[in-house]
Amino acid sequence: MYEGAVQDLIDELGRLPGVGPKSAQRIAFHLLQIDGPDAQRLADAITRVKDTIRFCARCWNVSEAEECRICQDPRRDPAVLCVVEEPRDVLAIERTREYRGRYHVLGGAISPIDGVGPEELHIRELLARVGEEPVEELIIATNPNVEGEATASYLSRLLTHHDVRVTRLASGLPVGGDLDYADEVTLGRAFVGRRELGA
Amino acid sequence: MYEGAVQDLIDELGRLPGVGPKSAQRIAFHLLQIDGPDAQRLADAITRVKDTIRFCARCWNVSEAEECRICQDPRRDPAVLCVVEEPRDVLAIERTREYRGRYHVLGGAISPIDGVGPEELHIRELLARVGEEPVEELIIATNPNVEGEATASYLSRLLTHHDVRVTRLASGLPVGGDLDYADEVTLGRAFVGRRELGA
Repeated sequence: MYEGAVQDLIDELGRLPGVGPKSAQRIAFHLLQIDGPDAQRLADAITRVKDTIRFCARCWNVSEAEECRICQDPRRDPAVLCVVEEPRDVLAIERTREYRGRYHVLGGAISPIDGVGPEELHIRELLARVGEEPVEELIIATNPNVEGEATASYLSRLLTHHDVRVTRLASGLPVGGDLDYADEVTLGRAFVGRRELGA
Repeated sequence: MYEGAVQDLIDELGRLPGVGPKSAQRIAFHLLQIDGPDAQRLADAITRVKDTIRFCARCWNVSEAEECRICQDPRRDPAVLCVVEEPRDVLAIERTREYRGRYHVLGGAISPIDGVGPEELHIRELLARVGEEPVEELIIATNPNVEGEATASYLSRLLTHHDVRVTRLASGLPVGGDLDYADEVTLGRAFVGRRELGA
């Protein structure tokens, strides 16, 4: 065992996604060896993100205000909503510059194995928006994997009797992967070729 | 680009060893989504490690006091010094329970490609200890790779005219790897089978 403070840091780092015990140890010693202010910048960035960032009250994207920048932007088309799993997917789609509508972040995808059902996602809030906002099209941009497809089918069935067009991003995205790993061209083309989703 | 605080956190995380841009993004969103106190524990652990941990004035291991626990322990044999590259190597060797001497942490290995020469390592301090302390044997436990071997040869030549036995950990350690990845049995055997190092 290391001296208390070092072991505590290794333990905390080891709880991060994708950081195993050996990586945690390497990162801890890296932090020990760099200058104090450089390490403190990371500590402060963590504190600050928790203090200043919340989720947009409308679309559940990350936000520093009650509503996120995109929801506040009057130039974004309120008739089109793009439904994604995570805030990082919003960024991936923004990078394509193909999309001028708004978003709705579900906070994940339906996955019975992980205990994530429809009630764990922001689907109720999505239905409320479809009722209250002038939404004409819903582009379902969940990941092209099992959970994302299941979520897309679920939403499509749920919205059958609503007066809204439900589309799904075109294939062209590599199947089995994560949306936010796609390059801009592929993702942009998937937007252009989006198809109607049958119930 | 994300809202400022999120991007700042991603940037800081991306500076850690072994954390690429995608990992940094995933870790940042993980920190955003967990409870405030859980995230704060990581931030505090970083601050605390920088506030409380320094390097042992004698052996350059990590320490909460002027001298580390091992140097302060009167049961450790002062006649044997084990020379390692990094503090994490001390822990790896302690786990074998084969070693009852003391340590000297060089802070790296000689590597001209990375601009690390002997003067960047704690070699001058090692020579001072050999002169001042009752050291009879120096076990060179640098990594069994190119840099570690070069450092071992350098030290061996440097100590030719000192009245001290210089040994090197036995092979048995997988060549080309890092010392702290070895299992306890392999590392323990390497201690038992250590060999005399000719100049």
